[in-house]
Amino acid sequence: MPVVPHAQLEAFSQQLLLAAGVPAENAELTARMLLAANLRGIDSHGVHLLSYYLKQIEAGTVHPTHEGRVVSESGACLSYDGENALGQVIARNCCDHAVRLAKEHGLSIVTAREANHFGACFWWAREIARHGMLGFVFCNASTLVSPWQGKQPKYGTNPICLAVPPCGDDGQEPFLLDMATTTVAANKIFKAFINQQPEIPLGWAMDKEGVPTTDTVAAYNGLVSPLGGYKGYGLAMMVEILCSVLGGGALPNDLGGIRFVTKPVRVSHCYIAVDITRFMPLEEFNTRMLALTAIMKATAPAFGFTEVLMAGDPEKRLEAQRLASGIDIPEGNWKDLTDGAARLGVSVPVV
Amino acid sequence: MPVVPHAQLEAFSQQLLLAAGVPAENAELTARMLLAANLRGIDSHGVHLLSYYLKQIEAGTVHPTHEGRVVSESGACLSYDGENALGQVIARNCCDHAVRLAKEHGLSIVTAREANHFGACFWWAREIARHGMLGFVFCNASTLVSPWQGKQPKYGTNPICLAVPPCGDDGQEPFLLDMATTTVAANKIFKAFINQQPEIPLGWAMDKEGVPTTDTVAAYNGLVSPLGGYKGYGLAMMVEILCSVLGGGALPNDLGGIRFVTKPVRVSHCYIAVDITRFMPLEEFNTRMLALTAIMKATAPAFGFTEVLMAGDPEKRLEAQRLASGIDIPEGNWKDLTDGAARLGVSVPVV
Repeated sequence: MPVVPHAQLEAFSQQLLLAAGVPAENAELTARMLLAANLRGIDSHGVHLLSYYLKQIEAGTVHPTHEGRVVSESGACLSYDGENALGQVIARNCCDHAVRLAKEHGLSIVTAREANHFGACFWWAREIARHGMLGFVFCNASTLVSPWQGKQPKYGTNPICLAVPPCGDDGQEPFLLDMATTTVAANKIFKAFINQQPEIPLGWAMDKEGVPTTDTVAAYNGLVSPLGGYKGYGLAMMVEILCSVLGGGALPNDLGGIRFVTKPVRVSHCYIAVDITRFMPLEEFNTRMLALTAIMKATAPAFGFTEVLMAGDPEKRLEAQRLASGIDIPEGNWKDLTDGAARLGVSVPVV
Repeated sequence: MPVVPHAQLEAFSQQLLLAAGVPAENAELTARMLLAANLRGIDSHGVHLLSYYLKQIEAGTVHPTHEGRVVSESGACLSYDGENALGQVIARNCCDHAVRLAKEHGLSIVTAREANHFGACFWWAREIARHGMLGFVFCNASTLVSPWQGKQPKYGTNPICLAVPPCGDDGQEPFLLDMATTTVAANKIFKAFINQQPEIPLGWAMDKEGVPTTDTVAAYNGLVSPLGGYKGYGLAMMVEILCSVLGGGALPNDLGGIRFVTKPVRVSHCYIAVDITRFMPLEEFNTRMLALTAIMKATAPAFGFTEVLMAGDPEKRLEAQRLASGIDIPEGNWKDLTDGAARLGVSVPVV
């Protein structure tokens, strides 16, 4: 498996986006945020996504130079039309609006429709949190999950994300939750299938009749389970309401997906920012967060574990490792990227 | 089991609160909202709670005449001190503030500290939604759940609740999610234990060493599982941050509980209201909600089921039944209530 140093892979990614017609500032942002996911071990949302983005741009379903536009702004509420720009560009612009409005009103909500895949949520929530705010990010996603008691995919992994400051360059990140509302990412089931593991844990998936299964093949041909059953379905609908319903965007049955290059993705996003200083000085809030963290971490470990963590801790640890060791890119993904480079006339780094 | 008609039980509850020194308007509100939970089949949050409330009032840990006070208001952010008033009184006052501020700014966030048990969340979220707003309600709760990878209870069931309008008296309620961030309510495990069911489903609980178990006795002596493991723990911490950390209230290790009459409960609440009309006319939003609901309900049912529902549907159906048939009160709970009546000199309805 090729191992590419972080800086080199980021520069290569940026060159690919530039060659596809993405303006320099946006190419730099998109490359940086995709790499940040790889650094944190969230490879499902890392640089391999670029292969899909490039194909979408080449097919004309993602517009490399669009920025989106404000549809309406009223009080602390803003509605944005992404106009099929790169998801990262829409997200950056919406985070900026969310922070601006929360500075004015104490909190804000921004919805974006006609948007695209914006990489991993955590990056955007953290962009809001850098301003001393609670940063919430939600988005709907291509249909993959069945409503509870059903057996047809009708909605997506619909993630929930919260970042808590300080999220500066000093590496402090007291809490960074970024979770799909399915029990596990669909990728984990695909991985078990590819690696011919016969069994997966109960609760991960259902067979095609909607019956919970531990058989990997049945799961692969079946459905991803909503987190804990009806509760995960409820949370996913909460996300759907905040994104597509409130944002005036495409409902789940009208969504495309990053793997279908001929159809626009049309997902919706939602951003909520809460200015903590309206409640107490940031220092006091930070002290309280540390106290909560200390209470949780002082818990005696369960059998088989050595410690209790807070959301984001495992990813923070990986980040330090991967910055030093470089990033593993599976052969197939590397080939997709280098194929893109050949099409666009970009030189490939030697690995 | 005594079956008491709804109106009679509500009047009796109101009399008990009045006799305990709660002003008429607040007694009426508290009785009505507790009964509403029974009507919807949420008996864990119904009228039996009154026995605890009465004991807390008699012990001086809940103040029957307090109303709480605004600590600070800045933009759309309000911090409230419940001053150990009845939880329902604090919640009513905070919902009023949330609606007022959302009318002004488009959305609002209200935190309440030094609060008490306010019954079921759904009532309060619906109070906000009646104003054409998305109503979110969160609260922290007495320690019962272990952080993921741990084996000591360190936080509570920390519910997440969202009500979507219209929530008028015409019975329309397109979406009403009210869920603990545990896999199931602790009550379900207690019930299996009391009814000597030897096994519970995997995922509900862990034994006292933190190992997932299906043995009812081990579960009863062990720990309630966070919803889906680390994700439920993450969601519970999100709730904790919105309530106690942001609200300046007691952190989970300083909380009492409704069963410990000598210690104030000290929970925190959080209310978020979003004025939908800042995004689109309410009629358009309602049409979009109906479209989302239609997509989900058109899903082919999984094996063993006959239909797909939206959050709140099962409770809405029970409500119609129980309004007609009256409310079953288990003997033990009825005795607690009638004991309270004897202490307070309230006459008991004949059942």
